Amino acid sequence: MSSINRIANVASHLSNSQISTNNNASGDIGLIGLAVMGQNLILNAADHGYTVVAYNRTVAKVDEFLANEAKGKSIIGAHSIKELCANLKRPRRIILLVKAGSPVDAFIEQLLPFLEKGDIIIDGGNSHFPDSNRRYAELGEKGIYFVGSGVSGGEEGARYGPSLMPGGAKEAWPHIKDIFQDIAAKTDGEPCCDWVGEAGAGHYVKMVHNGIEYGDMQLICEAYDLLKRVGKFTDKEIGDVFAKWNKGVLDSFLIEITRDILYFNDPTDGVPVLEKILDTAGQKGTGKWTAINALDLGMPVTLIGEAVFSRCLSALKSERVRASKVLGGPSVEGESPITDREKFVDDLEQALYASKIISYAQGFMLIREAAKEYGWKLNNPAIALMWRGGCIIRSVFLGEITSAYRENPDLENLLFHPFFKNAITKAQSGWRASIGKAIEYGVPVPAFTTALSFYDGYRSEKLPANLLQAQRDYFGAHTFQTLPGKENDFLKGDWIHVNWTGRGGNISASTYDA
Amino acid sequence: MSSINRIANVASHLSNSQISTNNNASGDIGLIGLAVMGQNLILNAADHGYTVVAYNRTVAKVDEFLANEAKGKSIIGAHSIKELCANLKRPRRIILLVKAGSPVDAFIEQLLPFLEKGDIIIDGGNSHFPDSNRRYAELGEKGIYFVGSGVSGGEEGARYGPSLMPGGAKEAWPHIKDIFQDIAAKTDGEPCCDWVGEAGAGHYVKMVHNGIEYGDMQLICEAYDLLKRVGKFTDKEIGDVFAKWNKGVLDSFLIEITRDILYFNDPTDGVPVLEKILDTAGQKGTGKWTAINALDLGMPVTLIGEAVFSRCLSALKSERVRASKVLGGPSVEGESPITDREKFVDDLEQALYASKIISYAQGFMLIREAAKEYGWKLNNPAIALMWRGGCIIRSVFLGEITSAYRENPDLENLLFHPFFKNAITKAQSGWRASIGKAIEYGVPVPAFTTALSFYDGYRSEKLPANLLQAQRDYFGAHTFQTLPGKENDFLKGDWIHVNWTGRGGNISASTYDA
Repeated sequence: MSSINRIANVASHLSNSQISTNNNASGDIGLIGLAVMGQNLILNAADHGYTVVAYNRTVAKVDEFLANEAKGKSIIGAHSIKELCANLKRPRRIILLVKAGSPVDAFIEQLLPFLEKGDIIIDGGNSHFPDSNRRYAELGEKGIYFVGSGVSGGEEGARYGPSLMPGGAKEAWPHIKDIFQDIAAKTDGEPCCDWVGEAGAGHYVKMVHNGIEYGDMQLICEAYDLLKRVGKFTDKEIGDVFAKWNKGVLDSFLIEITRDILYFNDPTDGVPVLEKILDTAGQKGTGKWTAINALDLGMPVTLIGEAVFSRCLSALKSERVRASKVLGGPSVEGESPITDREKFVDDLEQALYASKIISYAQGFMLIREAAKEYGWKLNNPAIALMWRGGCIIRSVFLGEITSAYRENPDLENLLFHPFFKNAITKAQSGWRASIGKAIEYGVPVPAFTTALSFYDGYRSEKLPANLLQAQRDYFGAHTFQTLPGKENDFLKGDWIHVNWTGRGGNISASTYDA
Repeated sequence: MSSINRIANVASHLSNSQISTNNNASGDIGLIGLAVMGQNLILNAADHGYTVVAYNRTVAKVDEFLANEAKGKSIIGAHSIKELCANLKRPRRIILLVKAGSPVDAFIEQLLPFLEKGDIIIDGGNSHFPDSNRRYAELGEKGIYFVGSGVSGGEEGARYGPSLMPGGAKEAWPHIKDIFQDIAAKTDGEPCCDWVGEAGAGHYVKMVHNGIEYGDMQLICEAYDLLKRVGKFTDKEIGDVFAKWNKGVLDSFLIEITRDILYFNDPTDGVPVLEKILDTAGQKGTGKWTAINALDLGMPVTLIGEAVFSRCLSALKSERVRASKVLGGPSVEGESPITDREKFVDDLEQALYASKIISYAQGFMLIREAAKEYGWKLNNPAIALMWRGGCIIRSVFLGEITSAYRENPDLENLLFHPFFKNAITKAQSGWRASIGKAIEYGVPVPAFTTALSFYDGYRSEKLPANLLQAQRDYFGAHTFQTLPGKENDFLKGDWIHVNWTGRGGNISASTYDA
């Protein structure tokens, strides 16, 4: 869209706003999709004094909702898309909370005949950001403002204050800012919601959030596994460990619910429910997208990658059961070899903390690269603040990240900030010791180890990729560059090919990539 | 295409074959693209008695080739696509060795006016398999047989015997089998070339080959790095280690060239060229595709993933240099802490060997899943044999894999075969000890560690994914399954939601995936 068109659109939008004051409709915002997240978000908005118009494809669900949870609240039921739109003040603000993919496009198609220029469609589902890029552009051409907003916090968050990450048509922001910031979680009085950036940036940041969530969950699982399999702690004892950790640097929602889960016993026999749950996890979601995007952008977001692959491996349950019978290796049978339980727990806390620092550093590296690649102007401190509360990865830790980015919004890497640099340096001995134990006793810790490999690689002035380049030049004439100051009569030019064997020709692989 | 159409096409193809005997053209096969791989493949085919018609977009390159390398051989130069096609016996067999992507489509477009039903287009470039799937279908509709063939072996391989992995229109195979198997590498008298499977299967298998190549190279780099940074070995001493390893279980092309590289000194000052090469590697290729495909298919191909990410990290050179000045951690200054150098080297050999077994096991897991996902019938022993010689990953090791799959083509996992099960069990103490050293002294070994994490995870009957499922149910009502026999009055049904807090509702997240 040219800048002239954009100005014209803004103008028509302003005139629409004039009309809206003459409108008798009472709905402040519409919401389509009455699954748990949708219902809770509606109740949340109603609690903040907004009149919400609710619609669902299966209309019976609207009546059921109105007769139960929504009863007596400022919630209007709509039995058709037309009715939904007719009940909304202009510019209309409509949130879609439906399954990502074609259902979003289908509802947009159904909405369009009843919308006017300047109306706003907000997709609050887990859409893939390229879809949001496309919808932003397509709706923009029609004069409709598209907002793709990440929503995190699960059912509790949606009900009492989620983290909201809206991006897309900036023109929409003044019209949705109050509602969004009112219903969002608050941290130290600040709403966990701000404008993220252009086009699909809101859903992009939500995607990275979910990837980091995958990583955090995997790290917690590895700590639990080590406490159980090497430390031989009971679930109650592990719960106590998490309760303790939740008072320190790891203080966070996921640590807190892990404590609750470990304390939760089956009322029928008093056995922890956790130990009865099948150990296979699905992975076909946003974590996978994050890992793929990291590969596409060439950013080493290894911890999320390993977290996704760990879920894949967990899913091969029957194969693992067979493998467990035939593949040898260490394991702890009988009593725990750990003599100093306190040190074991403290080391593990450091391992978890250091790995978490790496994961967030990698996540922000990815966001930095995405902003460059997609031409978005992203606000790092705002992103950290949005994750500070409301969402699944909320933590005290994100308060430190917010501070770091507020101090220096263009911080090259979290690891360069004194707070994190010192924290990770201090955490190292526990981190390395915990991994050592895992390797000795045969317990898999893919996320702990990949984080450490990244750290040791990142702080390596020289990595062995020189050998890799030599190999590629040897077998494929791919050429290489020299270290600064190492050029000479033999190693001349910007990209050099060496005849390593004396047999090969002098043709470099300029057009063919083997 | 319906089965009736397919039969009709075969019939018309047979009648074209009849015509071909009346044709006066003398070219057995045409080749487009005279970069190093193309030139060498032509010379290879000419050496085997075939008359090759050579064409290149920049026509001057044809004349240059004819006047030099091709002089006196059964090679015909063509100065246009028309001339190329006119000089070929029917059915015409034309190999494209051009840059993957739009150049392949462009040459196919240019070829079509000069081709007849039953002619064969072979794409020997590094095309992405979905492109080959598409070209196979599009050309099939026109009665042209498309073959997507992986070609590996670098410039030397192309010249003296590459590994060839053809897939696509099976009808083409009888017409290209002799040429392909004649020019391919031989191992124990068998050609490293066989029919791979349908549509893009040839390029798929080549993609996985390249992914495994990424992994092998990364593993070698990690061994080199440990020998250098912890063992304080000189390049000559490391060369000796690789020379020794090349006589044992690791005997392979990549180990051999690594030895050569380590021995290769700059003639101007006698310093190893390797130590003057910039330690940054590119990664925008087939390794990345393999990792992305693994994520898409949900297969934990972690070693290739880490190998790709390691290249990404190597590329952040200036950032690493800055990080090396500020981030703390262990390193070996001065003398090596290794007292028993022989054990250090032997342990490392085991680490490399065990990690390599994991990498190939993962690669074949991916191939197995791809066959299922894409409906291909793939021949595992043939794939292993094609990689046995000619290509970059050729090794004695692949002979063992070939034997294992010949013994049992439907082997569920390489790790279940007695040879590999015993090998990896034996290799464990060295593997764990090497990683222990790396962690202690702060040298990154992402591929060694991810391989071990995979091994310990794969042989775990129970992984901590039960906690992950509990967390997902806690915050998102995602439901979980129970372990067999753990159902009771409280944990009822196939997918169970527990009200962990006593606060949440009873709505499960049936349509919304947070």
